[in-house]
Amino acid sequence: MRVAMIGHAFMGAAHSQAWRTAPRMFDLPLAPEMTVLVGRDEQRAQQAADQLGWADTETDWRRAVERDDVDLVDICTPGDTHCDIAVAALEAGKHVLCEKPLANTVEEAERMVAAAERAAADGVRTMVGFTYRRVPAVALARQLVRDGRLGEIRHVRAQYLQDWIVDPEAPLTWRLQKHLAGSGALGDIGAHAIDLAQHVLGDVLTELTGTTTTFVTERPLPPGDHGLDGDADTGRGPVTVDDAAAFVGRFAGGALGVFEATRFATGRKNALRLEVNGSQGSLAFDFEDMNVLEFLDATEAATTAGFRRILVTEEEHPWVEGWWPPGHGLGYEHGFSHQVVDLVTAIAEGRDPAPTFADGLQVQRVLAAVEASADSGRWAQVEA
Amino acid sequence: MRVAMIGHAFMGAAHSQAWRTAPRMFDLPLAPEMTVLVGRDEQRAQQAADQLGWADTETDWRRAVERDDVDLVDICTPGDTHCDIAVAALEAGKHVLCEKPLANTVEEAERMVAAAERAAADGVRTMVGFTYRRVPAVALARQLVRDGRLGEIRHVRAQYLQDWIVDPEAPLTWRLQKHLAGSGALGDIGAHAIDLAQHVLGDVLTELTGTTTTFVTERPLPPGDHGLDGDADTGRGPVTVDDAAAFVGRFAGGALGVFEATRFATGRKNALRLEVNGSQGSLAFDFEDMNVLEFLDATEAATTAGFRRILVTEEEHPWVEGWWPPGHGLGYEHGFSHQVVDLVTAIAEGRDPAPTFADGLQVQRVLAAVEASADSGRWAQVEA
Amino acid sequence: MRVAMIGHAFMGAAHSQAWRTAPRMFDLPLAPEMTVLVGRDEQRAQQAADQLGWADTETDWRRAVERDDVDLVDICTPGDTHCDIAVAALEAGKHVLCEKPLANTVEEAERMVAAAERAAADGVRTMVGFTYRRVPAVALARQLVRDGRLGEIRHVRAQYLQDWIVDPEAPLTWRLQKHLAGSGALGDIGAHAIDLAQHVLGDVLTELTGTTTTFVTERPLPPGDHGLDGDADTGRGPVTVDDAAAFVGRFAGGALGVFEATRFATGRKNALRLEVNGSQGSLAFDFEDMNVLEFLDATEAATTAGFRRILVTEEEHPWVEGWWPPGHGLGYEHGFSHQVVDLVTAIAEGRDPAPTFADGLQVQRVLAAVEASADSGRWAQVEA
Amino acid sequence: MRVAMIGHAFMGAAHSQAWRTAPRMFDLPLAPEMTVLVGRDEQRAQQAADQLGWADTETDWRRAVERDDVDLVDICTPGDTHCDIAVAALEAGKHVLCEKPLANTVEEAERMVAAAERAAADGVRTMVGFTYRRVPAVALARQLVRDGRLGEIRHVRAQYLQDWIVDPEAPLTWRLQKHLAGSGALGDIGAHAIDLAQHVLGDVLTELTGTTTTFVTERPLPPGDHGLDGDADTGRGPVTVDDAAAFVGRFAGGALGVFEATRFATGRKNALRLEVNGSQGSLAFDFEDMNVLEFLDATEAATTAGFRRILVTEEEHPWVEGWWPPGHGLGYEHGFSHQVVDLVTAIAEGRDPAPTFADGLQVQRVLAAVEASADSGRWAQVEA
Repeated sequence: MRVAMIGHAFMGAAHSQAWRTAPRMFDLPLAPEMTVLVGRDEQRAQQAADQLGWADTETDWRRAVERDDVDLVDICTPGDTHCDIAVAALEAGKHVLCEKPLANTVEEAERMVAAAERAAADGVRTMVGFTYRRVPAVALARQLVRDGRLGEIRHVRAQYLQDWIVDPEAPLTWRLQKHLAGSGALGDIGAHAIDLAQHVLGDVLTELTGTTTTFVTERPLPPGDHGLDGDADTGRGPVTVDDAAAFVGRFAGGALGVFEATRFATGRKNALRLEVNGSQGSLAFDFEDMNVLEFLDATEAATTAGFRRILVTEEEHPWVEGWWPPGHGLGYEHGFSHQVVDLVTAIAEGRDPAPTFADGLQVQRVLAAVEASADSGRWAQVEA
Repeated sequence: MRVAMIGHAFMGAAHSQAWRTAPRMFDLPLAPEMTVLVGRDEQRAQQAADQLGWADTETDWRRAVERDDVDLVDICTPGDTHCDIAVAALEAGKHVLCEKPLANTVEEAERMVAAAERAAADGVRTMVGFTYRRVPAVALARQLVRDGRLGEIRHVRAQYLQDWIVDPEAPLTWRLQKHLAGSGALGDIGAHAIDLAQHVLGDVLTELTGTTTTFVTERPLPPGDHGLDGDADTGRGPVTVDDAAAFVGRFAGGALGVFEATRFATGRKNALRLEVNGSQGSLAFDFEDMNVLEFLDATEAATTAGFRRILVTEEEHPWVEGWWPPGHGLGYEHGFSHQVVDLVTAIAEGRDPAPTFADGLQVQRVLAAVEASADSGRWAQVEA
Repeated sequence: MRVAMIGHAFMGAAHSQAWRTAPRMFDLPLAPEMTVLVGRDEQRAQQAADQLGWADTETDWRRAVERDDVDLVDICTPGDTHCDIAVAALEAGKHVLCEKPLANTVEEAERMVAAAERAAADGVRTMVGFTYRRVPAVALARQLVRDGRLGEIRHVRAQYLQDWIVDPEAPLTWRLQKHLAGSGALGDIGAHAIDLAQHVLGDVLTELTGTTTTFVTERPLPPGDHGLDGDADTGRGPVTVDDAAAFVGRFAGGALGVFEATRFATGRKNALRLEVNGSQGSLAFDFEDMNVLEFLDATEAATTAGFRRILVTEEEHPWVEGWWPPGHGLGYEHGFSHQVVDLVTAIAEGRDPAPTFADGLQVQRVLAAVEASADSGRWAQVEA
Repeated sequence: MRVAMIGHAFMGAAHSQAWRTAPRMFDLPLAPEMTVLVGRDEQRAQQAADQLGWADTETDWRRAVERDDVDLVDICTPGDTHCDIAVAALEAGKHVLCEKPLANTVEEAERMVAAAERAAADGVRTMVGFTYRRVPAVALARQLVRDGRLGEIRHVRAQYLQDWIVDPEAPLTWRLQKHLAGSGALGDIGAHAIDLAQHVLGDVLTELTGTTTTFVTERPLPPGDHGLDGDADTGRGPVTVDDAAAFVGRFAGGALGVFEATRFATGRKNALRLEVNGSQGSLAFDFEDMNVLEFLDATEAATTAGFRRILVTEEEHPWVEGWWPPGHGLGYEHGFSHQVVDLVTAIAEGRDPAPTFADGLQVQRVLAAVEASADSGRWAQVEA
């Protein structure tokens, strides 16, 4: 399983750690090879390849996706490039793992899904990188809902709270301009919250009403050329994406959902939080305490019922057997290793991994509905 | 300060405990006297008066509010009666403390405010019972915001989560029919969440979009006559109020608010929760841990910044000096004692206590906006 | 049930609140009457009686315990006076409720128990004020252990952590000199930790090894005469009790106990904490979060086992039915009301309340063993 | 920096992950090479080497430590072998990293330190694997104490709580027999608690009193030959080490310490917990929530003071810069990577890493004092 990874920033480092680690801690049916890393700047790409452990480099992703010695393309670049790279890779017959959100627009995502469907005929697989699904505590949450331990689901509260641009003088990045990032907190982290909630429930949002907000509309340009819009004289450029998004939505199965994503929740660093209330039980999760799932079983006697703090580090828990004894917590990057395990296993077994590009498109449609509702001031339907 | 209390159920017990306790633990400028308790059933009223410590009883609230030996009327009845009692009491020149929500409709609330304004000319005072304002941790939150410790407020998350009717066979009560209760979770507990958020911010909601839901639309009638609609043959009646409400709103000062009130949050017993994120700090409160306020001061060095778990039991904290040493927590009913302290003190000092009927009306208008938005599927403005 | 209360400081206020409240919130078989308050200073006693709600005052406790219109003597004074007052009251045929620790020495406690045994022949009852037993969460803990939910008990961790004299210039009080207080943290708060652990386990400590420490050996004298030793010239006096105590002990049933009591645990205000580990389950309690009991049921599947945060506010929980709905927490003083309920009920039913003076003596013997071990540097046996 | 790793069980996997990861996430002055893995069984050693990423294998550690292509020996075997391997490696001029506890007896540890001192003349370095020192939250704790943020240290509470042998039918392992493991919970996990407390304080225990206990004295033998004592007929063997240990101790600087280590704390999986109380502040840490340090700054105003929940994932925190953005937590094995970083850096810079074998010996002496006190029933001095 020879891999080409496009991009080598934060996500590239996390993916590399996973490609390197998964085969050491798990028995994989196929051995991943870290064949080629792609970066536009030759020197920086070489440096990254040396640091992260890739055998070769390319500066043009088009060359990489066509190499004969590449079986799988791992896309870790900003959202505006996902569509072109993925479609080209699929057409070249490569499996594709693509970071989220799948694309910057529904239209792009649809093109990617169409390409994935065409390639599927030849046994080519696609996956979108909603890695939080592969935190063991989240997988346990999914399992409890699927097993009926929560009964009928009534409420979902999902939030993704960060604070890295609270300071109005924090500089612009590609994540703060629409032509590069598609949207702001909504697509970057709200997409995770949406996927997480839908995944744990095994249900989809059908309609919603909400808003997006930009608290700081102009920021200093960073040094160097990053393709950012701005005024070279003032050294400042516009923030063209949302800083925060919030909406109320309804799930197909009748649950009421309340969602929020923001980069202005001072003191919350990476608080991807989920609460689910069902007729027979409830769940609560916060990524800032990622090895814990809180679970309330309402079928217990009132005298001793209470939210249980389950330390999700038992060998019976998903993926944990590959790691350490109980109580020896996992970290952020372990979800990426689990993603590699599941992707490689699915490919070896000739079946689709989850979430596929089609799942990524569905999330994209929820994002589009949020923007539509924010624009119209009315409820928006999520396209089915 | 001779008091007549109308109603003697849950709220009557809490108010009685406060009238009895406040003068013992605090130095009050006027000594409250528990003069007369009013209940429709003579025997049950007498029993309640004996149990709760009231000197006399009446079965007709009209007689009570006109008694010469009554200075203040304390209304602890269901919402459909608030307006008539309050207006009559005010016209009789009595101070009025009225449970929340102020009324079942904006129109009633407006009539109450008009009566309050007329009576004010004679030094008559009104107060609405948003007692959660008088939890010391909440008062401290208010103080920190007012002192600028949070900077510019960006986000509010306010929830009031209960679970007492998760069971679809839990019987009907007056709280589940619109003609008696006005609304469901929205007015009963959502009103607290709204008042809490607006109070802590010192700001008001201006517009919002959201929805209300009724998960269980029919329930068994309880034994006895409670003025409930229903079918005597089937022994069942309709739930005519919301089980849950959720909305996204904007504050005058620019903050984005996300609100939720529900009686279907399995395992959450009385979780009135508030989170506030500002440019310089954040707050978190949960009434289920009522002696604690979490506070993040973002002006601290990143190395040692973190949410502080402030145990709000120091003598420097609001009202605590009247009670016990540090770490000796207060309970639910203490907020009612603080309400008595502040009400009696304001009356003695010839000034309005807070929150007044006008404040109650403003909350009523937010409730009305939620219902309007739920009906129209659009944003609704909060009447100013 | 006419009551004389001796002492009117912190404990007097807490007891008064309980005598006043218990009959209002619970159905008591006998109505307590707050007959007489005793204080050495006539004016201050009168002021306290007015504030706290006592009908009459005395300045000499000897007169009070002999009054015909007194049925029960409630001792809220420093430890050096307990023995004389209690013995006199018992000899006068009065029921006695005595604050903890029962006495300043084992010898005094033995005299009190002897007097209690003599009086018992005439139906006179005694109780010692280990009120933390009557926090609902603690009573639930006791119940779970008694019901075998924890299996065989292996470990107990009990701590009582405060911080009110961390400042070396905090003034002397009667609690810091041996002739008045008997011991320091050990007797004042360690006694609570010992009683709590033994009560929850239903077991007793048999032997132990440990130490006591005094971190600050001299402090400023406070203004006024309080019977304190010290040097009027320097305005300073010696601390003659322990600031902290710690010991390891064995229970009769085989459990290993680790105990600690201190007034130097900076930031811990009233952290009476207990952890119990048994072969089938575990418990954790912290008075700073007094409405919660954590319970781990190890007979559950590993996948979903975890410490449950039980909010001990359900009507099924001990004493809660007298108060508020679920999730409406209780405070520090509620344990005192529960103490009144149980004491009055036991007297009315002609049986001994718990804990009796004999239980208080047993705790005193544990305290004596700690001091003996601290002196000898060896294990000390707890006298049976 | 060519490494030979002896042993390939749990610790071998953790060390391998660190050797593999550290150079990818950090800039190391020397590149580690995973040269040879040593295991007694050839086939299993080869399998482990393939899985974990080692280039070669040996079945005899003596050959490995003498190989010319080995610069550093990493000892991951049971305690009874540490001394022989380490001494031989040091005599062969290899740097040595040795798992904790350093040895099974003080005498062995002394021999190891003597060998280390001899080898030091040639620039050979030693380190003992107290990896918990390298959890960022622990390093921050150390830093706060060293910076004087806690003032004078009064109290330490250190516990290491596990529950993996609560079941009396859990089988014997080498960790439960003295000739292999030296001691039980005391040496295996108590050693970590002792090192942690001494490290954070920058102080040492001087004397202590305590006890050890074995709750289950006989267990089933596991299948296969593991060098365990037992009765082949009954299939059972004796537990010859402690299940739990507890002691009270004094630090050189005057702090009072309370320590506990147990494998019978049902529900606690890997709860290495530390609390420190000083005259100006306090700390609390629990490895089950390893990315968090709680810190109380008592110099703050009482109104807003409280334990801060510091999420120790900022780039300003020790080692975090090598990993992910704020809020993206680290896991158990990251401490091992940090150990590699610091060991390799120290070797490259020609200075001793910490903790050295001498530090390991000091902990061994504390362990010996606990056993001496448990035997004699008296206080035992810790050899200086």
